[in-house]
Amino acid sequence: MLNEKLSWRYATKKMDPSRPVSEDKVAQIVEAIQMAPTSSGVQPFELFVVKNPEIRAQLREAAYDQSQLTDGSHVLVFAAWDNYSEERLDAVLDHNIAERGENAGLRDYYTKLKSMYLPRDAGTNHDHAARQAYIALGFALAVAAELEVDSTPMEGFDADRFDEILGLKEKGLHAVLTLPLGYRQADADWLLPMKKIRKPLDELVTEIA
Amino acid sequence: MLNEKLSWRYATKKMDPSRPVSEDKVAQIVEAIQMAPTSSGVQPFELFVVKNPEIRAQLREAAYDQSQLTDGSHVLVFAAWDNYSEERLDAVLDHNIAERGENAGLRDYYTKLKSMYLPRDAGTNHDHAARQAYIALGFALAVAAELEVDSTPMEGFDADRFDEILGLKEKGLHAVLTLPLGYRQADADWLLPMKKIRKPLDELVTEIA
Repeated sequence: MLNEKLSWRYATKKMDPSRPVSEDKVAQIVEAIQMAPTSSGVQPFELFVVKNPEIRAQLREAAYDQSQLTDGSHVLVFAAWDNYSEERLDAVLDHNIAERGENAGLRDYYTKLKSMYLPRDAGTNHDHAARQAYIALGFALAVAAELEVDSTPMEGFDADRFDEILGLKEKGLHAVLTLPLGYRQADADWLLPMKKIRKPLDELVTEIA
Repeated sequence: MLNEKLSWRYATKKMDPSRPVSEDKVAQIVEAIQMAPTSSGVQPFELFVVKNPEIRAQLREAAYDQSQLTDGSHVLVFAAWDNYSEERLDAVLDHNIAERGENAGLRDYYTKLKSMYLPRDAGTNHDHAARQAYIALGFALAVAAELEVDSTPMEGFDADRFDEILGLKEKGLHAVLTLPLGYRQADADWLLPMKKIRKPLDELVTEIA
């Protein structure tokens, strides 16, 4: 049952530096990110999988010295498009046509999409792109939990500094999420013994029957 | 393997009106949403589970007449907080203290969180809250796929009209995502026979070893 794994997972605070995640498991987590749905199928983000210890040390500094970035073995960085552009949307359309064959309806759909996205300001478009990365984060967390790989989803880092370290700005990208992967060091994690807290269903959910 | 299920799922275009999703399965999908992590554990959204046929017919109208809203049996609506407020954040803190006991460090953390969130404009805060709902959408899609329940994640609907139909504005909420649940009507779904398209890994992913 996936729900049991989703309850098992938690935002790991202390990872065991002696236990790297296998490349096979990382590949499965990356595959989940690849398969995540996005608005109109555009996938408006890129994923950086950082294993290099020196780069992870720099990212750790830019993430308020959170130890998971170097105690874990891999750091995923989700970088959303800074804006939509004709070129980027045409590339998605071309890929679609190449895979599925010519399709006039699809061409019309992308013409409409461009007429909606391209006049909007970059901030609105980047925000829309960023939201799609959060769906993919959900998929990554779910597959990591299934594999009993620990992870720590983070928004709280210096995103501009991440951009510099990874050269994102020149690629038209901006870091929005990071996810260190590793294994909990159970005897050193202050959060692990604490009760997991979620809102009760009667506060979170309204049924309209 | 969850990844197989994540490949199996797709944005269902035609659902079978004769096959409702069981309440047990809906409850498991709702539980995944409840368990989804959010920034600082705030869970800044609410979930509406709409079964009522008349209300779903109204939502369908406000969703450009997409048939899944009435052909499926349940419509989930994710409604994000319109803003952060002292009252809302204090309620999260109080719940935390009630569950885990008094904690000076946690009180300091929330004081800092409030000093960051409360001066920001409502639009920035709503956007931040909305992003958290997208993580929960990812969890919902993953558990639905595990249960072989079909679903159609949608951003493309008249969110203001959804707010009116569900009375969200007066609750300080704004609809950001909807997810009809049901079962595919395989012989009538134009998308089902088409090849699933995702960006190849070498376009989506950069490894930094």
